[in-house]
Amino acid sequence: MKALLTHINSPKDLKKLSLEQLNLVAKELRDFIIDIVATKEGHLGASLGVVELTIALHYVFDTPEDKLIWDVGHQAYGHKILTGRKEIFETNRQKDGISGFPKRSESEYDDFGTGHSSTAISAILGMAMASKLQGEASKQHIAVVGDASIASGMAFEGLNHLGVSDVNALIILNDNAIGIDPSVGALKKYLTNVKAGTAKDENIFECLNLNYSGPLDGHDLTALIAELERLKALEGPKLLHVITTKGKGLKKAEEDQVVYHAPGKFDKHTGERLQKQQQNLPPKYQDVFGHTLVELALENEKIIGITPAMPTGSSLKFMMEAIPERAFDVGIAEQHAVTLAAGMASQGLIPFCTIYSTFLQRAYDQVIHDVALQNLPVIFCLDRAGLVGQDGPTHHGVFDMAYLRCIPNLKVFAPMDEMELRNIMYTAQQGISSPLAIRYPRGRGHNVQWRNEFQPIEIGKGRCLKKGSRIAVLTIGHMGNLVPSILEKVESTEEIGHYDMRFVKPLDEPLLHEIFGTYDQIVTLEDGCETGGFGSAILEFANREKFNKAVKIFAIPDNFVDHGTIAETHAMAGIDFDAILSFIKST
Amino acid sequence: MKALLTHINSPKDLKKLSLEQLNLVAKELRDFIIDIVATKEGHLGASLGVVELTIALHYVFDTPEDKLIWDVGHQAYGHKILTGRKEIFETNRQKDGISGFPKRSESEYDDFGTGHSSTAISAILGMAMASKLQGEASKQHIAVVGDASIASGMAFEGLNHLGVSDVNALIILNDNAIGIDPSVGALKKYLTNVKAGTAKDENIFECLNLNYSGPLDGHDLTALIAELERLKALEGPKLLHVITTKGKGLKKAEEDQVVYHAPGKFDKHTGERLQKQQQNLPPKYQDVFGHTLVELALENEKIIGITPAMPTGSSLKFMMEAIPERAFDVGIAEQHAVTLAAGMASQGLIPFCTIYSTFLQRAYDQVIHDVALQNLPVIFCLDRAGLVGQDGPTHHGVFDMAYLRCIPNLKVFAPMDEMELRNIMYTAQQGISSPLAIRYPRGRGHNVQWRNEFQPIEIGKGRCLKKGSRIAVLTIGHMGNLVPSILEKVESTEEIGHYDMRFVKPLDEPLLHEIFGTYDQIVTLEDGCETGGFGSAILEFANREKFNKAVKIFAIPDNFVDHGTIAETHAMAGIDFDAILSFIKST
Repeated sequence: MKALLTHINSPKDLKKLSLEQLNLVAKELRDFIIDIVATKEGHLGASLGVVELTIALHYVFDTPEDKLIWDVGHQAYGHKILTGRKEIFETNRQKDGISGFPKRSESEYDDFGTGHSSTAISAILGMAMASKLQGEASKQHIAVVGDASIASGMAFEGLNHLGVSDVNALIILNDNAIGIDPSVGALKKYLTNVKAGTAKDENIFECLNLNYSGPLDGHDLTALIAELERLKALEGPKLLHVITTKGKGLKKAEEDQVVYHAPGKFDKHTGERLQKQQQNLPPKYQDVFGHTLVELALENEKIIGITPAMPTGSSLKFMMEAIPERAFDVGIAEQHAVTLAAGMASQGLIPFCTIYSTFLQRAYDQVIHDVALQNLPVIFCLDRAGLVGQDGPTHHGVFDMAYLRCIPNLKVFAPMDEMELRNIMYTAQQGISSPLAIRYPRGRGHNVQWRNEFQPIEIGKGRCLKKGSRIAVLTIGHMGNLVPSILEKVESTEEIGHYDMRFVKPLDEPLLHEIFGTYDQIVTLEDGCETGGFGSAILEFANREKFNKAVKIFAIPDNFVDHGTIAETHAMAGIDFDAILSFIKST
Repeated sequence: MKALLTHINSPKDLKKLSLEQLNLVAKELRDFIIDIVATKEGHLGASLGVVELTIALHYVFDTPEDKLIWDVGHQAYGHKILTGRKEIFETNRQKDGISGFPKRSESEYDDFGTGHSSTAISAILGMAMASKLQGEASKQHIAVVGDASIASGMAFEGLNHLGVSDVNALIILNDNAIGIDPSVGALKKYLTNVKAGTAKDENIFECLNLNYSGPLDGHDLTALIAELERLKALEGPKLLHVITTKGKGLKKAEEDQVVYHAPGKFDKHTGERLQKQQQNLPPKYQDVFGHTLVELALENEKIIGITPAMPTGSSLKFMMEAIPERAFDVGIAEQHAVTLAAGMASQGLIPFCTIYSTFLQRAYDQVIHDVALQNLPVIFCLDRAGLVGQDGPTHHGVFDMAYLRCIPNLKVFAPMDEMELRNIMYTAQQGISSPLAIRYPRGRGHNVQWRNEFQPIEIGKGRCLKKGSRIAVLTIGHMGNLVPSILEKVESTEEIGHYDMRFVKPLDEPLLHEIFGTYDQIVTLEDGCETGGFGSAILEFANREKFNKAVKIFAIPDNFVDHGTIAETHAMAGIDFDAILSFIKST
């Protein structure tokens, strides 16, 4: 019963409709998103919040001639549906299906790929400057940026340049007072005042020389269209402040915006989430981190928890609830999070700074310049390291071992299981002399019984899990769990040794001497990039020590891995069960 | 004739003085800085600008109990001199001498190492939060941040958190309207209005919930002390806006603030720079880049130049003068610079984004997420790659090959000389299908005649410079220039081959097959980190192709290299003439 939406195959079809009809399209579009996401899963709340805005933008502007960027990209489902991807929207986030984020190679309407936050202002300014230089004076350029994203440093850098440019660019501040978790920070407080009418005369965006308008009700299609038409006629950089409700139109999603950011399967009528059977499953690594941190912090008052905007995703929320005075969400501010931790560590505190592996890329300089160079014992907990599945290449955490391994002083550990994660956290908070990164994957571990008594881990020591004679499999992190099941399928099991190396850096050189002295074939296994990764570290050791043994490296080849389930992405990368088994059988 | 300064060995000695005497100390301190920097060289203007502020801070606050951070660190000479390093100040920036930047291991008064900009707010907030948690309620925390630095994204992230904190922290905005080059951007424009009294009611810092005061004359010691005393008594986060003149007290330095940022040797009375004999020297790589870019951009109107705040240092200034509509200084905003370039490249422009190697660390995520993932043909010109000499470990550009090599789609090139730099720039602007990073060192090349006719370079092709039979030396970039002089000292010269590999990525695999098939000993030479660097790339190739040849890697070992001359730092890292010669002679 999507009477109007059925006939909308591109934004051109929108332009024929009356305002009344556009309001009906909004209803149908919202229902369409809910219908599909209810069964296929995905990001819900952000796209529901911008249904009217999406329609208004494609109605007023001439996409794809005019350029339109959706920051972070969680908000772009409506955009995808209105721009020719309605029929394939049910393949969202599936292998070989459409991406959950805007993607240039997918559609001419996706002007810029987004996934990480706060990139849209810089990108749209680049495009607008290009238009100006290329004599396309009438071309319009719009970026939609959330209030959590606009508080990130990169967005500020973009605004700071935009304000002194003379391009046709419109930034739409989509202010719903929440990112994935509620927004934080002084700018959020300020925006709240603006909305309440209690801010003083001059607007912060006007301070940055932008033509500011708003705040405007982002669900009032008539008002939105009128204001966008007005702004379209104005030259120069502009910012429109729009107020929306995340999850708009689905009561449950409006009420619990954090959970309904990406709720999993739910009843499309009631919004009720369809709970999976969860008895006796191993815990998520995130929860092991979160609960263990509370356990340790209750005993050690020097422990601090820091997350840049991922309290729920990282499970730092447990410490924020239990010990709020020592656990901090600093917003989408990875750079700040790392140097804040460095400042704390310099004064004797023990900061656990939890950041998704892919987002630590944002704070690479701070890890080198503020932490490692000064050898400050910050503990980085790199969440969602490795291939993350449906979120795809913008979110895979596959470069960390390569980009961290080259930094002096920094140690890098990957736990094979939940108990190892707990033990390294326990070890680290007892006092370490240099910074440590602990990388662990998205999702569940392997042990239902995981609340082990803490055991210290000797820094730089790997462990032999099974002795062999001919082939040694050296694994890092949770990939090691593949090995026992592979061994079950192999005949000459006694020939095969298995070593959980634990530390990417420093390598356990005594153990490696033993291994290279014993076995003929070395196999390394990691869920990180092959170039410069763990396997390369083993090659560097072998070369330095003049060992001439065959080394087969299982790692992610030198290309970006598409989206799919985690298992599918491992198979795409050639680091799955079958690939390794096949090699071992043939060797 | 430093009657007062002679007796000041720590800030305690300042506290005994009268205001009148403090003003005399200011004069003596300024003269002392000028005297030493005139002959020993170093950063001049920034420290001259904060002489009064430095004295006022150490007079009012109780350092080192109270915490004091100097952002970027160029400004800290006066601080060093007043905090016990007067006698050794003449060793500034020399090997085994004091660092040109604050350094924790050097003094208990250097609370946080700085070198890259905009870190101080995050670090001081971390310290202030630590003090609060550790029950040190009366401890004060001060960060001095320049107006160019505070416009960087990381600083905004810090302010955004600071504004909702309840700590004792004072940010001093040292507003001299210039970084190394004049400040840019909307915030700079706004601050100019504030100073002119034409800004409207509410202050941008008040929007961020900070207690704002100023602007105040930063050379008025009496006013500074009074205001700092007042602020010291106020709880919570504060921002004091101070107006200073960079180079204050040396007429020439005030008049030409860009040149006198770091003027080299000069006459301490007149300020006149002592020009080195410069006839017939090879040009700086920076100037080759700058002039060549103009040459190419005059022919190709799609070329754009972008620098984050280094127009002079990178020599982009030549294009900014010649073709201002296509050359942009975006301020200290590396993240923005990279994604701006990505936006431009998506619209068919050809952006040359020139960034110091060490500062590209700030935009690592943008290189991966916005450029490489979308395979946009941005051309990165990585200036000051390798060991940079006196600026030391905060500024060495030694990680780039390791952290870039692991990124899919990105190609990495290092020119051996000026002509190679010109040729790769020429090649890149003709159209490339993927992003390219060109890394070149600080300082002069090797060729007085460098304005060669352009020759295209085949992507991924290295070159054989000398055939041999037993030892093959594989070099990357300018390090290759060492080889001919080494060969002069070797007897069996005909045995030794030399290959300029040019591309760190993609490797020239056909050439490598030839090399590994011919020689018994492979030697690699690079001025980047050993872990994961160019040598590791060669090991990866050899392992993949099952070559069992001895490979000796000359690269920077896994520790931070201290400051010294470039030659000294190469020797410290073991990648100098003597080290290589000695290996080759003994092999």
